Amino acid sequence: MTSLDRIDAYWRAANYLSVGQIYLLDNPLLTEPLRPEHIKPRLLGHWGTTPGLNFCFAHLNRVIAERDQDMIYIAGPGHGGPAAVAHAWLEGTYSDRYPEVSQDADGMRRLFRQFSFPGGIPSHVAPEVPGSMHEGGELGYSLAHAFGAAFDNPGLVVACVVGDGEAETGPLAASWHSNKFLDPARDGVVLPILHLNGYKIANPTVLARIPEEDLVKLMEGYGYRPHVVAGDDPAQMHALMARTLDTVFEQITDYREGRDGRLPMIVLRTPKGWTGPKTVDGLPVEGTWRSHQVPLSAVRDNDEHRAMLEEWMRSYRPQELFDADGRPVPEVLGTVPEGGRRMSANAHVNGGEVLRPLVLPDFRKYAVQVDKPAGGSSEPTKVLGAWLREVIEANPRTFRLMGPDETASNRLSAVFEATDRAWNAQVLPTDEHLGAGGRVMEVLSEHLCQGWLEGYLLTGRHGLFNCYEAFIHIVDAMFNQHAKWLQSSKKIPWRRPVASLNYLLSSHVWRQDHNGFSHQDPGFLDVVVNKKASVVRVYLPPDANTLLSTADHCLRSRDYVNVIVAGKQPVLDLMSMEEAVAHCTRGLGVLEWACTDAGAEPDVVLACAGDVPTLETLAAAALLREHLPELRVRVVNVVDLMRLQPASEHPHGMSDAEFDTLFTADKPIIFNFHGYPWLIHRLTYRRNGHDNLHVRGYKEEGTTTTPFDMAMLNDIDRYHLVMDVIDRVPHLAGRTAHLRQRMVDARLRARAHTREFGEDPAEIRDWSWPY
Amino acid sequence: MTSLDRIDAYWRAANYLSVGQIYLLDNPLLTEPLRPEHIKPRLLGHWGTTPGLNFCFAHLNRVIAERDQDMIYIAGPGHGGPAAVAHAWLEGTYSDRYPEVSQDADGMRRLFRQFSFPGGIPSHVAPEVPGSMHEGGELGYSLAHAFGAAFDNPGLVVACVVGDGEAETGPLAASWHSNKFLDPARDGVVLPILHLNGYKIANPTVLARIPEEDLVKLMEGYGYRPHVVAGDDPAQMHALMARTLDTVFEQITDYREGRDGRLPMIVLRTPKGWTGPKTVDGLPVEGTWRSHQVPLSAVRDNDEHRAMLEEWMRSYRPQELFDADGRPVPEVLGTVPEGGRRMSANAHVNGGEVLRPLVLPDFRKYAVQVDKPAGGSSEPTKVLGAWLREVIEANPRTFRLMGPDETASNRLSAVFEATDRAWNAQVLPTDEHLGAGGRVMEVLSEHLCQGWLEGYLLTGRHGLFNCYEAFIHIVDAMFNQHAKWLQSSKKIPWRRPVASLNYLLSSHVWRQDHNGFSHQDPGFLDVVVNKKASVVRVYLPPDANTLLSTADHCLRSRDYVNVIVAGKQPVLDLMSMEEAVAHCTRGLGVLEWACTDAGAEPDVVLACAGDVPTLETLAAAALLREHLPELRVRVVNVVDLMRLQPASEHPHGMSDAEFDTLFTADKPIIFNFHGYPWLIHRLTYRRNGHDNLHVRGYKEEGTTTTPFDMAMLNDIDRYHLVMDVIDRVPHLAGRTAHLRQRMVDARLRARAHTREFGEDPAEIRDWSWPY
Repeated sequence: MTSLDRIDAYWRAANYLSVGQIYLLDNPLLTEPLRPEHIKPRLLGHWGTTPGLNFCFAHLNRVIAERDQDMIYIAGPGHGGPAAVAHAWLEGTYSDRYPEVSQDADGMRRLFRQFSFPGGIPSHVAPEVPGSMHEGGELGYSLAHAFGAAFDNPGLVVACVVGDGEAETGPLAASWHSNKFLDPARDGVVLPILHLNGYKIANPTVLARIPEEDLVKLMEGYGYRPHVVAGDDPAQMHALMARTLDTVFEQITDYREGRDGRLPMIVLRTPKGWTGPKTVDGLPVEGTWRSHQVPLSAVRDNDEHRAMLEEWMRSYRPQELFDADGRPVPEVLGTVPEGGRRMSANAHVNGGEVLRPLVLPDFRKYAVQVDKPAGGSSEPTKVLGAWLREVIEANPRTFRLMGPDETASNRLSAVFEATDRAWNAQVLPTDEHLGAGGRVMEVLSEHLCQGWLEGYLLTGRHGLFNCYEAFIHIVDAMFNQHAKWLQSSKKIPWRRPVASLNYLLSSHVWRQDHNGFSHQDPGFLDVVVNKKASVVRVYLPPDANTLLSTADHCLRSRDYVNVIVAGKQPVLDLMSMEEAVAHCTRGLGVLEWACTDAGAEPDVVLACAGDVPTLETLAAAALLREHLPELRVRVVNVVDLMRLQPASEHPHGMSDAEFDTLFTADKPIIFNFHGYPWLIHRLTYRRNGHDNLHVRGYKEEGTTTTPFDMAMLNDIDRYHLVMDVIDRVPHLAGRTAHLRQRMVDARLRARAHTREFGEDPAEIRDWSWPY
Repeated sequence: MTSLDRIDAYWRAANYLSVGQIYLLDNPLLTEPLRPEHIKPRLLGHWGTTPGLNFCFAHLNRVIAERDQDMIYIAGPGHGGPAAVAHAWLEGTYSDRYPEVSQDADGMRRLFRQFSFPGGIPSHVAPEVPGSMHEGGELGYSLAHAFGAAFDNPGLVVACVVGDGEAETGPLAASWHSNKFLDPARDGVVLPILHLNGYKIANPTVLARIPEEDLVKLMEGYGYRPHVVAGDDPAQMHALMARTLDTVFEQITDYREGRDGRLPMIVLRTPKGWTGPKTVDGLPVEGTWRSHQVPLSAVRDNDEHRAMLEEWMRSYRPQELFDADGRPVPEVLGTVPEGGRRMSANAHVNGGEVLRPLVLPDFRKYAVQVDKPAGGSSEPTKVLGAWLREVIEANPRTFRLMGPDETASNRLSAVFEATDRAWNAQVLPTDEHLGAGGRVMEVLSEHLCQGWLEGYLLTGRHGLFNCYEAFIHIVDAMFNQHAKWLQSSKKIPWRRPVASLNYLLSSHVWRQDHNGFSHQDPGFLDVVVNKKASVVRVYLPPDANTLLSTADHCLRSRDYVNVIVAGKQPVLDLMSMEEAVAHCTRGLGVLEWACTDAGAEPDVVLACAGDVPTLETLAAAALLREHLPELRVRVVNVVDLMRLQPASEHPHGMSDAEFDTLFTADKPIIFNFHGYPWLIHRLTYRRNGHDNLHVRGYKEEGTTTTPFDMAMLNDIDRYHLVMDVIDRVPHLAGRTAHLRQRMVDARLRARAHTREFGEDPAEIRDWSWPY
């Protein structure tokens, strides 16, 4: 039996197992003619892409075995779940992970039955599938994930099948350029396989219908060496694919060894639903969009369809592939690699297996000295940048900082003392901090930043994504998919925890006065808290020291998405490092020095979350102390937003007793919030004090103006907070008309000053805590 | 004076006006040496891209004038606001729109002062700028907008400058392929100008640093005829650009007349901050990232910087460009087109000016016959599809249906009886419904669907975007930008209302049981309601007739974003057409036939929004009627979600009195909601009855399973609703233990059935209202 025969046997076996998963409840080896009760009542699955995925698996296995190549496989068409499952079962990994699905007839029956079946497994390449690190539920991210996996994994080849449907998406179209960020010396290699089966759901695909000359130019233009493998005759295609892969791996060696700057890639053109039914009910199926999901739809009730299914399955000659007990025969397994070389068992795709904790320098070293609360000021992200520099130095191969060209703008520039921006394209003499192997990844695509980071994390490394707050919405959908992956993975015993996905959102809504309305949106938090409490965390450190403490905490955590919102502009230093750590550990707390309640029951609670809202709240507290010295004011700052939720809703949630102790059950609470105000209501609506809660936040008012005018436009400014107190503390309303008018006047004066001079009044710009 | 001299004069004038906007408060014509008080205190603006934008404006004007060409201009680098403003002022449009900013010295002073100044205008190409239809706040959408504008505008050329920063984004990378969807006969033409100035914020750009051979291949691979215009000598560049544009417009004629299938495009390579300061403080500035925003930063305080600014501004020889009164001299205006041919005054970019209302066929013709409430069932989107077919027939040039290859999957296939999918690439004999000029736009990129539709709407046409619910999150950020554009535009008197952006979200969370967890996310609604109440509307029609009525309403509306969530699977027909119209007009109402409160005060209110939650609510009401016939149950269905808000928060909001009348102020309300449950809390937390409100909805539980199992996983199923009623109606709890246990058992039985047979029990699948 030749090598190609063995590949073909493996391919036929995988195809047989794929069809079986889509259709069969029982009779897995076709030991008797198919009867209706052997067929699933609801046929769910995607056949169209599956034979192509199986074809690639089969051929890559030969290369792995022959070259002892460390390789993983990303299936862009992740709805082709049957392929990945079949592969894992043939390689024995499925039975290792799920012993009840044994590698025999009984296991095959279970394998078929459980697929896309209630209580069974999902129809896509979900976390449940050994060998997967990419679900492909939402399309577009396979190639970015592949590059993320390859970074800092020299020796690894990431084979990435890109579907031609997926190839129409924006994120995928941009991902081809990831090769400009790959370092042949320090990184692994990505082998893209653009799989043109011609159709997406019901339509032809763009890349399958442009002239091949254009397609080749497109790939060359992206910087690759394309190889076209096209046809539908299995024997010819096996020979061509094997020959092409031999060439491709020689070119990969050249790339790795610096003889060629271009990566090879493969254009694989095969019929959709290859080897499936050619025509059904008089309509062409193989090679058309009708193969996308289930080519024969009435198999249970329609005898003719059922006979076609049986004929189709027998066309793979199962008797040559499995022994009487249902075990794959040696010829089928002839090209399957050993142990951890099996793509379904490769440790990289169960990243927690290879994860090493970060070496984290003591963040306390970078603390801002605070002798007096709110006496001085610092730029929080700048302070963080110094610590991140040391994080990068201490972890030269396991930590990356991603961002859409905003690392300097977000004032993290200290990192460039330790590293460069990753860059593998032309460098000019005037450039700064560009170089292969740089730890900072900057590309003006939030999709690529997110996709690379996900791939990097899921293969057992660490990172931080810094982004303008408004534009992180660009990856809302990617965040959703990643959070769902984490939630599902947590329930799978053999999936090991991976490092959390950490966002640092800076250049936030309150300091986008210069860029204007389009750059003002704090709503990512609302998207995040829709996801399961077990996987999401949100932090709003109000100053530099709390940011340091929060960042250290997040980089140590596992299996979460952590969102940190912190400004880059100077804010008051509120706490010493010791106080900051205590405050962050509690997640929220009273700023004693700003209170006038002397530890007793206050008249009003001023709560705040976020740096600018905290500043305005403190300024309001100072105004109240000056003008209403007898008023008992308590100031509460919230760092960990999830603390506000009931303990029943989130693991960080407070008990009602704690909540009442801090916020009171019956006193007015004026909550100055960084984001959209209703998020605070949503988190607290079951609390005793909720009826007394009044939240200020961003309400979609903004333009190009000054920082304080932005605050005033949205009524989060100090003067308006004082007015809110006056309006809500019952015994005040009558005797404070004069003060209220002063506040109104102060706002008008500030507005007029701004419009005349183009900047905020000096008393606003230079304000610090006066007590 | 040659034509090129006039172009150069115009360019210098535009550059002068751009620098003036960034820096000057006064002394606009430099009639005296610059003093500190002439300089703005905060310098905000983006110089880097501006001279390139001005260069393109200047040259395109010549072409317009010479060819009487209808042309509009999209500035992808939309932060180059000074350029667009300068252009509109030179063309006289600015003064037409804003008479106080006259075309003289006083107007120039105002023009400079107001830019990026509190109380003035934004720093970007915002809606305030005449001639703009694309802000470019968030990058990536210029080319998709351009194609959207070109569709169904034969004769129009949309010149689109794509920044090389923006070109790194996913949406832009995919947008190049829009040419496969353009019809040379029925559509206009897009002229992409890829402007390589080499840097984004602080980094080189990818496309500026790959070999030019690769770049040319990339553009050829995308299907264009690229022309490179590169250099930094103004005279040479003027000659080259003019020559190239002459060639390009000949090629455009060839394209239009069918002699050439490829569109030309231009690669324009010029220094960043071209003609600005070469070096500042010893560091290179022109041609580097340091030109990105404000090249000279200390102009007010630093005499040397101020002298450099003056020298820079005088380098444009303003005395040759403006007369003593500050009016542009005739030589500067020599290439400016007349009237509506001016790009800043072209009616297409103020789309409401050319908007014609849709011809809408009577949706009542398509009504499902309903003799008895909930007696039969229909597939709502399929019913809608038949009406949409007639909408398309009646509006053959002004309506398009967008979707990521899901039009058939979402059961709108009837439209293909009237039209094709737009397609301008290879067609095979097996293809169906592909053709140039098709009204259905299907590409597997939600970004492109959204971008095309935005461009189409903003130029005065109509459309509907149908999408899988979960994946509409892909365009969260684009929705945000569009909603902000609408909100800002509404405040600008000369901006005419445009057609609303209509989403039809189908294949929704409750019917993605087959695709599994990754396809289940109803959170787009949460993103939408963060935007200003004046521009967003959300509808959840529960059946086919209410969907028809809702869709008709949305297609007639202006300046909103309308979100309609409706299923494609069969649901019960609840209302006759007449009832549906009345129900949709009210936005919510009591389903009398399902109630047992006999019009009196109920014991419990069962509220619902969304088709599947409504079905389960009705089934729960039927169970209660059967088992607790004396219980007074009221069933309320909500179509228009915004009705739940207080009237003070949203124009559709109900008064508290109305709310109390419907929902009661003190009885338990069990609200079965389509989306995440807290959205209902957020909308109602100020209502009297809120403390009695208990909301069921999606809580991130799901996998590949059956529809009813999905409902059970999230506790929105009929049995659980009955349990909720038992637990919350005070006098019931004691004497209903038996019924409660029956519900628990029913759930267990349903679950077990599902896991054994792979489908829901027949009594669930076949359920209809039994009374």
